[in-house]
Amino acid sequence: MAERIGFIGLGLMGKPMARNLLAAGYPLTVHSRSAPPVDELVAEGAARASTPAEVAAASDVTITMLPDTPDVESVLFGDDGVSEGAAAGSLVVDMSTIDPIATRAFADRLGSGRVGMLDAPVSGGEVGAVAGTLSIMVGGLDDAFERARPLLEAMGSTIVHVGASGAGQVTKTCNQLVVGSAVEAVAEALVLAAQAGVDPARVREALLGGFAGSKVLELHGQRMLDGAFEPGFRASLMAKDGRIVVAAAERLGAPIPAFRAVAERLEAMLPAGRGDLDYAALVTLLEDEAGRTLRAEP
Amino acid sequence: MAERIGFIGLGLMGKPMARNLLAAGYPLTVHSRSAPPVDELVAEGAARASTPAEVAAASDVTITMLPDTPDVESVLFGDDGVSEGAAAGSLVVDMSTIDPIATRAFADRLGSGRVGMLDAPVSGGEVGAVAGTLSIMVGGLDDAFERARPLLEAMGSTIVHVGASGAGQVTKTCNQLVVGSAVEAVAEALVLAAQAGVDPARVREALLGGFAGSKVLELHGQRMLDGAFEPGFRASLMAKDGRIVVAAAERLGAPIPAFRAVAERLEAMLPAGRGDLDYAALVTLLEDEAGRTLRAEP
Repeated sequence: MAERIGFIGLGLMGKPMARNLLAAGYPLTVHSRSAPPVDELVAEGAARASTPAEVAAASDVTITMLPDTPDVESVLFGDDGVSEGAAAGSLVVDMSTIDPIATRAFADRLGSGRVGMLDAPVSGGEVGAVAGTLSIMVGGLDDAFERARPLLEAMGSTIVHVGASGAGQVTKTCNQLVVGSAVEAVAEALVLAAQAGVDPARVREALLGGFAGSKVLELHGQRMLDGAFEPGFRASLMAKDGRIVVAAAERLGAPIPAFRAVAERLEAMLPAGRGDLDYAALVTLLEDEAGRTLRAEP
Repeated sequence: MAERIGFIGLGLMGKPMARNLLAAGYPLTVHSRSAPPVDELVAEGAARASTPAEVAAASDVTITMLPDTPDVESVLFGDDGVSEGAAAGSLVVDMSTIDPIATRAFADRLGSGRVGMLDAPVSGGEVGAVAGTLSIMVGGLDDAFERARPLLEAMGSTIVHVGASGAGQVTKTCNQLVVGSAVEAVAEALVLAAQAGVDPARVREALLGGFAGSKVLELHGQRMLDGAFEPGFRASLMAKDGRIVVAAAERLGAPIPAFRAVAERLEAMLPAGRGDLDYAALVTLLEDEAGRTLRAEP
């Protein structure tokens, strides 16, 4: 019989992920801070729960998809939290992007109540969440991973069990470091081309064929050229992920001399009032400084 | 009848590029500062010239592939330089990576003697030079580009005419900005993973499937894991290219806040005695700072 799934956090990412579980035939109980996405999924066949504890009590596997580390901590261990409702032998799968060291502590606390935990953050954005093609990076024990694998396969197309508890979040931290650096670099390159009087669209095209080729150049490069900054993935969340990278690097003694500059640019999006734009809008900071945009005047 | 080609600068890149022109059936005259690669190509059917002026006098199209801007200036305009030997109506194709603004000045000076010029720097490394699969970014006039296209096709597989004189070098500048930033970011990510006790090889694998996927992660990431730092492309040359990026950005008023940090790391390779390693060895600076290597102990 299919395991009963709980899903907490029906945001831009969580809602389509939960919907894919429903479409795959899993019995689903949902909870979220805002009512409309809950109503939507209930209309599609999910059950409603009024607290995280209720979700966990009704579920064999409880999935969390939340903005940041403190949100996950309070949903798991706060009043009416998951840990109050979860039965021994049940499993928590946290798919949020949070601090990799806090993750290990959460797994230990759940484990003392004989509740298993996987950290399973994702890459691929809202597009991947809707299409069920997320890349999912998993940390935790082998048997918990094998148990969760069919669920993860309903949400993602690349699922890698990287290592023990925390390894998924460490991998996501590395992912955000690489992706954030790449977006800033592509933005700097395209603005430099425009300042030199060379068509940035032609530059993107020429670079795609060589060593500079990347998914970021392809997708975010095109967003920058088009000024298409509806998220996607919000700059405010990427700034939060940047803080996770910097904090983890400091505690681990890992040097990140270039990413520090990228993290500063991500932070600068917030006072500029651009936190709700896609993080490809990092290019707008450079455009402001250069006094031009990448888009040809009409 | 096939145009007569001259080739000046038979280094790590230039020698296999010249060889591919010979293999394509072009009559070839060569010159280089060091004798052995000249001897090699002469044994394979090329003619020898003792100065750049002699090369140009014997050629319809003269190609230069040299380390830096001053080298190109002296080969073109110094004593016994190309401009002394080149006939009106002939063409110079500079495939070196040099300053994009200096390039335009060189094209103007050659043009006053009715000698055409293309800037046509390449990406793809020694591997691409040998295989004839370079990515070639070209700036200059349409008719000069059409004239040179068959030659370029003997050396590369992606040939993009980006724009007017200088546009090729601007594109290469953008390329080095993006590639240099990506190599440093991948290095920072892999060392962070190792410091967190997570297998960096698994992290690379997990990241390749998502938004972080890139040629740099694939190729240079593997080099870092293997400690395989024989060039490839020397860190000293990448540091030189970093200087070109910084200088161009300053003159153009193009902000490059994150690349500045990358350029500093490239410069740090030289006093560390690592200028002759591939620039993937940027990771060794981080390994030193973290007090570990990415390679598992035997």
